[in-house]
Amino acid sequence: MEAYQISPENLPDLTIQRLTPCDITNPLKKTGIRFINDDASVAVYANSAQLQNYLKFKNTDQPPTFEMAGPREKIHFDPDKTTAAIVTCGGLCPGLNDVIRSLTLTAVWQYGVKKVIGFRYGYAGLSSNSLAAPIDLTPETVEDLHTVGGTILGSSRGHQDPADMVDQLVANDINILFTIGGDGTIRGASKIAQEIDRRNLDISVIGVPKTIDNDITGVERSFGFLTAVEQAREAIVGAHNEAKGAYNGIGLVKLMGRDSGFIAAEATLANSDVNFCMIPEVPVRLNGDGGFLETLKTRLHQKHHAVIVLAERLEITDIPKQEHTETDASGNIKYPDIGLYMKKRIEEYFTEKNVPISLKYIDPSYIIRSHTANSEDSAFCLKLAQHAVHAAMSGRTNMVISNWNQHFTHIPMALATTGRKTINPNADLWQSVLIATGSVVAPKHQEQARLHLLS
Amino acid sequence: MEAYQISPENLPDLTIQRLTPCDITNPLKKTGIRFINDDASVAVYANSAQLQNYLKFKNTDQPPTFEMAGPREKIHFDPDKTTAAIVTCGGLCPGLNDVIRSLTLTAVWQYGVKKVIGFRYGYAGLSSNSLAAPIDLTPETVEDLHTVGGTILGSSRGHQDPADMVDQLVANDINILFTIGGDGTIRGASKIAQEIDRRNLDISVIGVPKTIDNDITGVERSFGFLTAVEQAREAIVGAHNEAKGAYNGIGLVKLMGRDSGFIAAEATLANSDVNFCMIPEVPVRLNGDGGFLETLKTRLHQKHHAVIVLAERLEITDIPKQEHTETDASGNIKYPDIGLYMKKRIEEYFTEKNVPISLKYIDPSYIIRSHTANSEDSAFCLKLAQHAVHAAMSGRTNMVISNWNQHFTHIPMALATTGRKTINPNADLWQSVLIATGSVVAPKHQEQARLHLLS
Amino acid sequence: MEAYQISPENLPDLTIQRLTPCDITNPLKKTGIRFINDDASVAVYANSAQLQNYLKFKNTDQPPTFEMAGPREKIHFDPDKTTAAIVTCGGLCPGLNDVIRSLTLTAVWQYGVKKVIGFRYGYAGLSSNSLAAPIDLTPETVEDLHTVGGTILGSSRGHQDPADMVDQLVANDINILFTIGGDGTIRGASKIAQEIDRRNLDISVIGVPKTIDNDITGVERSFGFLTAVEQAREAIVGAHNEAKGAYNGIGLVKLMGRDSGFIAAEATLANSDVNFCMIPEVPVRLNGDGGFLETLKTRLHQKHHAVIVLAERLEITDIPKQEHTETDASGNIKYPDIGLYMKKRIEEYFTEKNVPISLKYIDPSYIIRSHTANSEDSAFCLKLAQHAVHAAMSGRTNMVISNWNQHFTHIPMALATTGRKTINPNADLWQSVLIATGSVVAPKHQEQARLHLLS
Amino acid sequence: MEAYQISPENLPDLTIQRLTPCDITNPLKKTGIRFINDDASVAVYANSAQLQNYLKFKNTDQPPTFEMAGPREKIHFDPDKTTAAIVTCGGLCPGLNDVIRSLTLTAVWQYGVKKVIGFRYGYAGLSSNSLAAPIDLTPETVEDLHTVGGTILGSSRGHQDPADMVDQLVANDINILFTIGGDGTIRGASKIAQEIDRRNLDISVIGVPKTIDNDITGVERSFGFLTAVEQAREAIVGAHNEAKGAYNGIGLVKLMGRDSGFIAAEATLANSDVNFCMIPEVPVRLNGDGGFLETLKTRLHQKHHAVIVLAERLEITDIPKQEHTETDASGNIKYPDIGLYMKKRIEEYFTEKNVPISLKYIDPSYIIRSHTANSEDSAFCLKLAQHAVHAAMSGRTNMVISNWNQHFTHIPMALATTGRKTINPNADLWQSVLIATGSVVAPKHQEQARLHLLS
Repeated sequence: MEAYQISPENLPDLTIQRLTPCDITNPLKKTGIRFINDDASVAVYANSAQLQNYLKFKNTDQPPTFEMAGPREKIHFDPDKTTAAIVTCGGLCPGLNDVIRSLTLTAVWQYGVKKVIGFRYGYAGLSSNSLAAPIDLTPETVEDLHTVGGTILGSSRGHQDPADMVDQLVANDINILFTIGGDGTIRGASKIAQEIDRRNLDISVIGVPKTIDNDITGVERSFGFLTAVEQAREAIVGAHNEAKGAYNGIGLVKLMGRDSGFIAAEATLANSDVNFCMIPEVPVRLNGDGGFLETLKTRLHQKHHAVIVLAERLEITDIPKQEHTETDASGNIKYPDIGLYMKKRIEEYFTEKNVPISLKYIDPSYIIRSHTANSEDSAFCLKLAQHAVHAAMSGRTNMVISNWNQHFTHIPMALATTGRKTINPNADLWQSVLIATGSVVAPKHQEQARLHLLS
Repeated sequence: MEAYQISPENLPDLTIQRLTPCDITNPLKKTGIRFINDDASVAVYANSAQLQNYLKFKNTDQPPTFEMAGPREKIHFDPDKTTAAIVTCGGLCPGLNDVIRSLTLTAVWQYGVKKVIGFRYGYAGLSSNSLAAPIDLTPETVEDLHTVGGTILGSSRGHQDPADMVDQLVANDINILFTIGGDGTIRGASKIAQEIDRRNLDISVIGVPKTIDNDITGVERSFGFLTAVEQAREAIVGAHNEAKGAYNGIGLVKLMGRDSGFIAAEATLANSDVNFCMIPEVPVRLNGDGGFLETLKTRLHQKHHAVIVLAERLEITDIPKQEHTETDASGNIKYPDIGLYMKKRIEEYFTEKNVPISLKYIDPSYIIRSHTANSEDSAFCLKLAQHAVHAAMSGRTNMVISNWNQHFTHIPMALATTGRKTINPNADLWQSVLIATGSVVAPKHQEQARLHLLS
Repeated sequence: MEAYQISPENLPDLTIQRLTPCDITNPLKKTGIRFINDDASVAVYANSAQLQNYLKFKNTDQPPTFEMAGPREKIHFDPDKTTAAIVTCGGLCPGLNDVIRSLTLTAVWQYGVKKVIGFRYGYAGLSSNSLAAPIDLTPETVEDLHTVGGTILGSSRGHQDPADMVDQLVANDINILFTIGGDGTIRGASKIAQEIDRRNLDISVIGVPKTIDNDITGVERSFGFLTAVEQAREAIVGAHNEAKGAYNGIGLVKLMGRDSGFIAAEATLANSDVNFCMIPEVPVRLNGDGGFLETLKTRLHQKHHAVIVLAERLEITDIPKQEHTETDASGNIKYPDIGLYMKKRIEEYFTEKNVPISLKYIDPSYIIRSHTANSEDSAFCLKLAQHAVHAAMSGRTNMVISNWNQHFTHIPMALATTGRKTINPNADLWQSVLIATGSVVAPKHQEQARLHLLS
Repeated sequence: MEAYQISPENLPDLTIQRLTPCDITNPLKKTGIRFINDDASVAVYANSAQLQNYLKFKNTDQPPTFEMAGPREKIHFDPDKTTAAIVTCGGLCPGLNDVIRSLTLTAVWQYGVKKVIGFRYGYAGLSSNSLAAPIDLTPETVEDLHTVGGTILGSSRGHQDPADMVDQLVANDINILFTIGGDGTIRGASKIAQEIDRRNLDISVIGVPKTIDNDITGVERSFGFLTAVEQAREAIVGAHNEAKGAYNGIGLVKLMGRDSGFIAAEATLANSDVNFCMIPEVPVRLNGDGGFLETLKTRLHQKHHAVIVLAERLEITDIPKQEHTETDASGNIKYPDIGLYMKKRIEEYFTEKNVPISLKYIDPSYIIRSHTANSEDSAFCLKLAQHAVHAAMSGRTNMVISNWNQHFTHIPMALATTGRKTINPNADLWQSVLIATGSVVAPKHQEQARLHLLS
């Protein structure tokens, strides 16, 4: 995932907050497991130019580093007296159950904590007017969770009052709270951690970053992303077959990605049938000479079929935003379904041009989100969860488990909520997409080029 | 892949050899593609402790870096006069056809090279007594290659005389040779590059590293590895079902990995049914108190079924090597099938102990090797191939395309052939396996532990 | 597929029309292949009650039979002088390319016909104002077709003038026309055959029945149907995970089936997560006491999630048809998207009842239609195509290849276009659905019943 | 499955044995479910020639029929007092858990039986020296069983004393015993039923036929078979890729099928890469002019790769049986691994001929057997199990649930154990294989034929 960077101005203090004291010997000590030193760290910038840029900006000669994740020899919580809780928030993502399972197994089997419970239906389940009581999570109940998509705990979107949620944690005797969710969830978790801090309570809050869009800052790859790409590829294969199955057939696939086009870009590279890939990071012009619609017409004229992949939101330069976004009662922007919008525009254009087309629209979102994790995501969830338990038992809090430059790391919630990770159009990933879709070709092949993307 | 490191003593000069001059303007310039500067670089060590260790060892304050991959503004080869050739060597690996396809498409479409050919059946096809003539590779012939496993070019093992192979390159007017293969292949490619150098020929040799075992030094992840893990998981699921389907059922799965247990370890983490995972890097004792066989007996006594995953070679501490390795006529070590060996030992042990078992042995090797690349590997092959073409066109030679710390990199063939990348038993990956298989557990759960692995 | 029957009044004369003479020795004779006698036949009614019903209705004691398919010792067409043509019509269906491939291979390899061509984009390609010229189909071009979904020939809907199409057949020297399509296509093919007959031309027209809905009379199972069920199951699994992932979560899946609910019913049985299955054959009442919406509310109250599967059209008893069907300019009924209609009704109902729900709508149609054939469909397509070639070469015409009671059969086009095959709600298949969805349960479990379907 | 027939001489009395009285009203009556009349029946012979043959042989004009399966209005067992038991025997087969699940759900939910238990590890668990106690099967414990391969009950091979087993049934208060297994299991079940009869006990014994080989007489298709074909196809695709990946590459796949080659034949048709398919029903000659080995040499000479599919046992005409079969202590024939035997013979032959080959052997047996049921098998298992419960509750015994000519049927255990169902080499299925593999081709293509199979 070389396609993005953390800009120096966004880099907060990377120190991880800890509960004290931390003087209990890790029960795994007797097993011979290898512990990680507290000063072990991982470079933020492996790219030399980025590093130089940072050092100059901060006027320092100290390269920034993330704390390394892993089991610590001394821990903060006494397992026999510790209850952990898990909550899953936001939309479904492949691997949620894998994370729940591995958090539970590691807490119980390796550390021997007293109890693990799961709050139901997101933060709503952590509020005083919860819809459903928390459930016990034991090795028996979680044993086969990884074979099922979705989340056994249920989920919901939306926020709750941090003070109320802390009350519930106290009422349930919770010592550790694992929140599995995206940047909204992490923001909520950070508020919980701050409220805990304010009340001087002995509760750790650890985030496991969940974003099917792969768009959390400081997180190299988020779980579920590779599964999403795999399933997206299936939908694109279908779109390609539909496109070729009709004269001037168009297969239009809308994929997840409100702010970041990682799924659309990576699925385009995983599949060699995509002619047009459009993402939020790269503005598109629809009309006029060399605009998308005209280029699509050229493509159809040459090949009589085309495959188009869209992320969930586009930056269309020649259409007033009002036409494809709305504002709700509270003034929040409400995006329309960009896929249906583009379908309409394409059909209108070709009707006007009197060119017959056959457009098939595929929106595989829920099929993707609800899928079981593929093997790589499954293994990744397991590792994330193990490291989240290590971090929590050592008393760390207000942090998120992450991975970066070949290592698992601890990052402050403040970093994970600093804007979105997006594709840098000038870097590797997007440039590969331009090549793979034939948007850039040797001048001598310009005429036969399979497709063109426009900005 | 945090589980390994490059030790300072193995790190050769990382400068990449180049053919000169390099003064032709890249035909992609007009397309607006972003070029990479020649001094762009990526840190070898993101782990701070490893970096300190290196700096101390080399007595320097210059962190080592890899050259960054990507298209260059000035190139060495005039596309109109350039013929590229591809050869695939060694055992099958998911993604071979993806690489062939993308090398061809990028060379032809983006750079406009004159011609791409493929030598048949490995280095044998590059020798004067080749079994089959090379074939033309065009956009049309490679278009759907990614939907098929194996290699359209055929492959073979074994070496050929470098001088003879260079003769064939000259005879075929080859300017660029892409070799897709493992460390033996890279060693051969390096000899070809050296012979070219000696003869002062204008031919670039670029390696695309292929190792289903993921064991090439300096390569963070090799293509086909994730697909192998995915397919290995399928086999383990089957083994688990077979094991549970019989009283004292044992499912024994042998996976690839002669020197490195990456597939076995990662598949164990991707699947939560494995009780014993054994790899070459971690010695195993079979007999005696606390030995593997006794622990297996305990496991069966507790649960009446067990799943065992083996890599292709094991370090067995209490069995003379002669019993499970042989030497061939030339004195080379010949390993027996460790899976069949362990099957026999397990059956003998339980016969002797008069404990009835039902052991099912699964060797999924060829099903795994011949599989099509999964989506992540498919996208990865495409990127590797694009970067290999960029490197070649810019006149780089005697190097291998790699990926490291979020970037694509150039590494000298000398690094890729410096010993194998192996799992560090003290680092992350293996420690996660120990936790996941229950080999380490809180003392209070020792009795119910699902399994134990021994060294 | 025991769920339907052919009613005696619909059974036309089952004699198959033949071109004469039929005196050329089958070139396969020398190979030792076994030939089928022309009087070999298969019982229409295996069900004794149905047979009695027929005999009584027709006042006969002769059980009706289908002609058995298979190679004949004497054939009508001289292979060396025979050109065959293939056309695919209507929506995509898994297996189209398998049929094209096997028709071509059998015609060329086994019979040695001179040439096979494919008309492009359905009957439109067979008209004088075709959009694209026909393409040659050779063993080389079709070799790997079975690995790709869709149809290499392209398809279209809609009719063409039979006289014009026969002109094109003559102009292209076609002796055999294979039409792959549903009942509209077969109707068109029959008109072509009648026009051929009228002109006294020596051209055979053979239909390979294609209907993803499995709704052609006289055809026990149509190709692509099992693949459709398999893919539908995937979508339902996703819907179930989405439903469980939210408080009062509802997963709503719309499947193919305008007149017949075979896909919805069979996918419901293939998946044990469906609570409500609705098909065109079984009327549904939405409102009121014991209506669908109230029962859904009860289900949510009990379990807090529900999975609903709909076929493409429903018979809603308490809603005026105008509300969910339209009439186009020509007076043809235009069905709205029943899935979106039901989504709206459900959301309105629960809004009114002030019950929060989270409904996720999945429409997997194009993903299903464009899929490659699964193994059973692939084998089935191959057999159908082989038998279609045998039938054509023997001079049969105006018929469709079918399968019935364990044998491949010849059925007159007149039968295949006699109304639709539909699910008999009183027979096996639907009764199994009622049991599997818990619509019928022992009275003592009525309270906990998982769901109820209403008529 | 048109490839076999039931010969008249093997057809026993088809009357189904019943326990009396049968006067309890089916609890489903109130639900409006449709009941099947006791005289509903299905024709044994749909093929007119087979029917004529039977009528002549038996000198009768009464076509033979099977009793139709389905719920009866009057039943024998009072649900409130009924305990049912399930046992699974023999090797794993996809769908075992589906059957267990659906038997349990239908018995509990629809009929309201008191209790369902499962005996562990086959008939061994039904004996007085059982290795493990039976377990309770409730809707909760079986709910997700269909997502897992294997059998939750465990299985074993081998027989037990019928008297002892009946003692255990009595000791456990069992009223209905469902046995899921192949012809050995059915033979055992029939002995249990006879012993019950002898003792005049009120226990029904119903078999659900399980044979991955699809070789039980009177059973049109057995569950798990389609899944086996699907997985076998995957292995063949791999073998094909391995074969093409080497000069004179040979992919050799051994599939299940000791007496009947259904899996090998159907997988060959589902996959278009097979050049040689060998099954027990069709004798093969290895050596000499036109023998298999010579033909393989010709094939390699033409194409340089070949794919061979073998069933588990072959009839080799020119090799003394002793060479490839053994006899064990009790005089039973012990077959060696035919795959390894053929591998050796092929390698020896080409060594002798001095032709270099590269043979890859794939034995996917346990991966296939342990797989979850595909959607069609899953739906089929559900239907079989529902009908088995209907049959049992109505007091039927000593019978097996089957499917035939589009209907579910009851067949006497005596029929199911009357020899094996095998492929008729003169009928449809095998003739399609001959065509698909190019074993028969038009004389003019003889030279280029893709392959030849010999007998």
